[in-house]
Order: sequence, then C-alpha cells, then structure tokens
Amino acid sequence: MSQYRIFKVDDAIAYVRVVEKLGDEVPLLGEEIGDGNLNQVFRVWQPGESRGVIVKQALPYIRCIGESWPLTRDRARIEAQILLNHGRVCPEYTVEVLHYDPALSVMLLEDLSDHRVWRQTQLEDLSFPEAAAQLGRYLARVHYHSSAFHLDYQAQQAAQTDFANPELMAITEAVFFVDPFRDHERNNVAPLIRAEAEQLWADAALKVKVAALKHDFRCKGEALLHGDLHTGSVMVTADKLKVIDAEFGGYGPMGFDLGVIFANLLLNFCSQPGRHRAVASRRVQQQRIEEIHSLWQNFRADFVELAAHSNDAALAEPGYVQDFLGRVWQDALGYAGCEMIRRTIGIAHVADLDGIDDPARRAACQRQALALGQTLILEAEQLLEEQFTALLLERVI
Amino acid sequence: MSQYRIFKVDDAIAYVRVVEKLGDEVPLLGEEIGDGNLNQVFRVWQPGESRGVIVKQALPYIRCIGESWPLTRDRARIEAQILLNHGRVCPEYTVEVLHYDPALSVMLLEDLSDHRVWRQTQLEDLSFPEAAAQLGRYLARVHYHSSAFHLDYQAQQAAQTDFANPELMAITEAVFFVDPFRDHERNNVAPLIRAEAEQLWADAALKVKVAALKHDFRCKGEALLHGDLHTGSVMVTADKLKVIDAEFGGYGPMGFDLGVIFANLLLNFCSQPGRHRAVASRRVQQQRIEEIHSLWQNFRADFVELAAHSNDAALAEPGYVQDFLGRVWQDALGYAGCEMIRRTIGIAHVADLDGIDDPARRAACQRQALALGQTLILEAEQLLEEQFTALLLERVI
Repeated sequence: MSQYRIFKVDDAIAYVRVVEKLGDEVPLLGEEIGDGNLNQVFRVWQPGESRGVIVKQALPYIRCIGESWPLTRDRARIEAQILLNHGRVCPEYTVEVLHYDPALSVMLLEDLSDHRVWRQTQLEDLSFPEAAAQLGRYLARVHYHSSAFHLDYQAQQAAQTDFANPELMAITEAVFFVDPFRDHERNNVAPLIRAEAEQLWADAALKVKVAALKHDFRCKGEALLHGDLHTGSVMVTADKLKVIDAEFGGYGPMGFDLGVIFANLLLNFCSQPGRHRAVASRRVQQQRIEEIHSLWQNFRADFVELAAHSNDAALAEPGYVQDFLGRVWQDALGYAGCEMIRRTIGIAHVADLDGIDDPARRAACQRQALALGQTLILEAEQLLEEQFTALLLERVI
Repeated sequence: MSQYRIFKVDDAIAYVRVVEKLGDEVPLLGEEIGDGNLNQVFRVWQPGESRGVIVKQALPYIRCIGESWPLTRDRARIEAQILLNHGRVCPEYTVEVLHYDPALSVMLLEDLSDHRVWRQTQLEDLSFPEAAAQLGRYLARVHYHSSAFHLDYQAQQAAQTDFANPELMAITEAVFFVDPFRDHERNNVAPLIRAEAEQLWADAALKVKVAALKHDFRCKGEALLHGDLHTGSVMVTADKLKVIDAEFGGYGPMGFDLGVIFANLLLNFCSQPGRHRAVASRRVQQQRIEEIHSLWQNFRADFVELAAHSNDAALAEPGYVQDFLGRVWQDALGYAGCEMIRRTIGIAHVADLDGIDDPARRAACQRQALALGQTLILEAEQLLEEQFTALLLERVI
C-alpha cells in the first residue's frame, strides 16, 4: 500500500476500508485513542457495532517528544513479529495482529474496547482476580516456546537474529539501568526525595549489582521477551486478559519480564498509603502480594509442565528446570528493583505514585518504592519466595 | 577463482600463484599438511624460502568422517571473519588471514612453520614458559573488545548476528554437553573405564550442573569466542604464540574459552603418571599448574586494565569488573570439567591420554581426568583460585 505518510484519523479510516474490502457505502467512524509515548493509535468502527479495529502506526520519532528524538519505524515490524510469535503459542492472552503493512509501519489489531487497562483498574480499586494467574500462564508459554528448552541451536539462533531490536533495547538499557542510578538530566526526581536519590546514586554495592543486571539484560538471551510488561501493557476483563505493546521486545533474560510486572504491582503496593486510609490500604496491599504469588506460581507450574516435554536431552534432566527457575526468580527480583527505582526517579513515572495528590504523602510512598527497590536488588540472592513474601508483609501498613 | 571445487595440492599451488601474482616462471612447491578433523590444509612455498603460505579449504563435509556427515562450507567465512576480528584487536597472537575466497571456501594464512603445536611440545616435555601468559593476554583482548564493556548495544547486537555460527556451535552442544553425559553411540569409552563412565552417567547432580553450563553456552553471549581453544589450536615458539583454527567460534560465555584451555592443560597434567616416573611427572604437573595460574592472572590483569577504559557508564562502576570476572572464573571451571570428560569418553580424544601405551596406566590417568572433571563441575562455585590450586596440588603424584 505504497509510501509512508503520517496518518490522520481520515487516513486510518480509509486504510481500514481498503484492507477490510469495505465498499464506499459502508459508514465508518474513527477516533484517535493513543495515549502511549511512542506511536499513534486510532480506533475505526462501523456505527452501531461494538467492536471495530485498532490502527497503530509507528512514527519516525518518539510521539511524546517529537522529531527531536528520531526512532526507527522498523519497530513496527519487530512488534508485529513478536505479537505474531507470541500469538501463535499463546493466542488466548496475546492481542491479535490482523494485518501488518511495512511501508506504512501500520498494524491493524483486534479492538479491545471491552477490556480495561489493568493499571487503570488498580487505580480505581477494581479487582480482577484472574489476571495475575493468566499473565503467569502467558509468560510461561511465550518464554518456553522461544527458549533453549523448546528450540534447537539453529532455530533459536535464527530467532535471536530475526527479533534483534537494538535500537529500542538500547533505550531500555539507558533509561532502566543507567540514568536512574546517577544524576542524569533525563531523570525526573521530585525535590522532596532528592536526598534519597542522592543516597542511592552513592551506593556502590547497589550499582555493582545493577551493572550485572544490565550486563545480563544484554547478553543473556534466554527467551523472546515482551520487553515492557508493565500493568499498562495488560488489558483485562472479568475473565479475559490480553497483552499489548511489544515494541521493546527481543531476546533477553526471562526474569526481566517477570521483574517488570512484579515491580508495577509493587509500585501500586507502595502507593496505597498515599491513596487510602489504613484499612483499605492494607486490603489492597495484601491483594497485590497475592497477585505476585499467583503470577509466579502459575508461571512456574506451567513452565515446569511444558519443560517436561522438552526434546533437549541435557535440559530435560530431572531437577534442572527447578534449578533454572530458581535463577529466573532471583533475576526477576533484581529487575523488579530496577523498575521500581526507574519508575520513581527516572524519565518515565507511573500514575500509581505520581497521581497521589498530597506531595508529602506522595514523597513518603516514593521513598518506600526506592527503599524496596534497593532491597530487592541487593538481596535478590537471599530472597526465596517465602522470604520475599515476608518482606512485603512487613511493609503492609 | 570462481566455482567451488575440492583442491588437490596442484590446485593449491595454482591458486597461490594467481592470488600472489607470481608468474609461471616462479617455482612453487606444495604439500598437504592437514591433520585436522574438519578441513584440508596445504602449505605452498618457493624452494629455498623458509616461509610459504598456508591454504586452508573447507569441504562440504567433515574431512575425517567423509560425505556421510555434511557440514556447511560457510564455516570458512565465519572462521575468516573471526580471525580477522581477533587479528584486529590482537594481531600479536592471532594467525594472519592473507586472503579469503568465499566461492572456494579457501583462506590463505600466514605460514607458521617456525612454530610448534603447543600440545605436541607438551607431549615432548618441551617447556614454553611464555605461552600461558601470552594466551591469557590474547583472551583478555579478544574477549574484551567483543564484550558489552567495549561495544554499545547496537554494535554488539550486529556482531552477534554477523558471527552467528549455528551449525558448528550445535555440534559443540552435542559433543561437549550431551553425548558424553549419557551412553551414546558417538562416545568412545575405553573398556577399562566403562564402569566409571556409567557411574558418571548416573550422577543426577552432575547432569543438572552440565545442563546449566549447556544453557549458558547457548544463551550467554558475552564475547566472541574462539570456540575450540585446546592446546592443538595454539602454535608456539620460544617467544611467540599464534592462535589458529577458529571455525567453532561465535558469541558465548567467556568462561568457555578459558575452561577449554584449562582442561587441556589438566588433561596433560592427568597424563603425567602414565608417561613418566614420579620425579619427572611431578615436575611437569607443577608446570601445568603454574601455566593455568599464569594464564588466568594475565587474562584477569589485562581484562581489568582494558575495562578501566570502558565507556559503559554502568559497567564501569568500580568493583564490577572484579565481580564479573569472579563469575567468569566459576564458568571456566565448569566448562573445564566438561572438556576433560568429553575428551576422555566422548567422540574426540586427546593424544595426551590416548598416547599412553600401557592400557592399565592409561586407564588410571583417564580415571583421574574423569574424577577431576566431575569435581570441577560440581564444585565450581566453591573453588576460588586458591582452593583450585590446592585441589590440583593434592593430586600431584
């Protein structure tokens, strides 16, 4: 469909009309719905129909910053590929890619208007008790099928090449592992927690651990990651769940995806005393602990079950998968710590903390997030799931 | 130059004449010198000249097996690329590639006729006291310059793609980590040590550790490895050293190259009681211990010095490189253990052990190699360099 141009809503409508082979007599409506940082997103639908189609287009720069930060449009190809790969092994929990157009850097995606953004539901204190377990099952399936347990050397090497995503993963390296751990102009540090940030920047032991996590993020290509699995990348209903927004994906350590989602649940956990009186805060905090437990247990159980069918004669050794998942757990805690810190003092914050109105209460919650993040990074190797849960329970206010 | 054909010695001579632009009047002699398993190798020279040129050609199958085991000729491209990459950062210790012809899968290499194969010198009890230190410096340079300490995300990702070597690294996976740890038809187990091999195959704890080492070999892409750094891939003179034969190279854990060379020194260590009376055996064993120490110390010192100039803000954190090298050491011991075992009961043995004439003495040395290999795999995490040296000194007979 020809040459790249930046869509307006009418272009999105016209594009859907062509792709879906709808005649000019079919009425179509459209709206821009994108609130993401990177891309533009439209919804196009027929009047009276509850479901339409989503049109997502990559711009040659970062949408929320503008042309001053150019960014490869090839990210649309990578995202489409990742969603298609994840969709093949886990269609239940992966948003469906209906069409991809490389020239226009456009994807048509299934419309999830009947879903809510998981983060938003948490901000509204709505409970989606199935979501955590579903997300654990999703991660087990997508990680397993791209891992050495499932793919032979040549297939995995080919996948690592196909899914190479150097430009976006370099951004993750910078905003996740580098900037937040030093005084950098890209950081966004609230004045009330400046002292804590400076203390963190002076913590040499912490920074050595973060260097190791960064090194592993680059070099430990265990599975095809989502790459940015925060609660805003997860859409939920009472019984369904869909993961969206995979443009930061690529091969990396499994613990990264787990850590990012753990951290986002923990950031919400830390925000509770700023949002609620004690009783309600305590109840929601316990719910977040329960969700992390459920996510991990479902991930682990499904991964172990899948790995029982591995054709790899060495990795199929009884006991190895448990041994391996023990290291994935440790990695996850370390990455969770980084995500908590970078979402509190780095460039990109979360509404859970930033949405707390009272500056003093907000700062108190941010301090909790920084402290918990540091503990997870420093003590990942000592914290089995039981100790980790105990650590969180101590912090329930 | 054109179409692929399998060279005979006359083809090699004719080819050198064309590439080096030598007229028909220049007399050239040639001989086949290859004793490797994979490729054919010729030496071409002018009568009266001490140095000629080496012609190395990849066949579309494994030379020592024949057409029944086909193997990509693309390995010649990969080897040329790796040698050129290593040569750029460490010309002192890397064999020089003079010319590469993709159509013929042929490389012209510098002639190292004034060098000896390091393994062979050890079999003749000749001492090359500089070699170990030189090899440590070589590894520091080639590993550092292909690592995350030196390359940014995009450069390292591009290198990982360029140097992808799935077909040969899949062979390493099979013959290094899979076959030797189970009763497999490709193994070559001497009847006198069959019982020990069977005991090893039944050791579940050992096999879990080997699975982790295999997984890391696949997924931990830290540096551009040589990939097969045994003492037969190292050419030495009294003061010079050149590394050859990099067709098994690709991205992997740094500890792999270190472990393979440690293991080959240790296999020679284990062979001594089968070759010598006690006094001589003890002297040579102590020399091998000293070589491993020197290799590691030089690797570590040079790597730390190079890393002091890293531009990576996170990895440059003081203390990180030491922390990282501690894990490289552990990895090296694990891979050393695998190499010792696979060279004793796997498909490809070493002359150090197999060349011991008396079957009972040979079996005793092989048992030592198997036992030491198992210990290194099982106890890698507990063995700092000091404990490792003590462990070896206990075994000096």
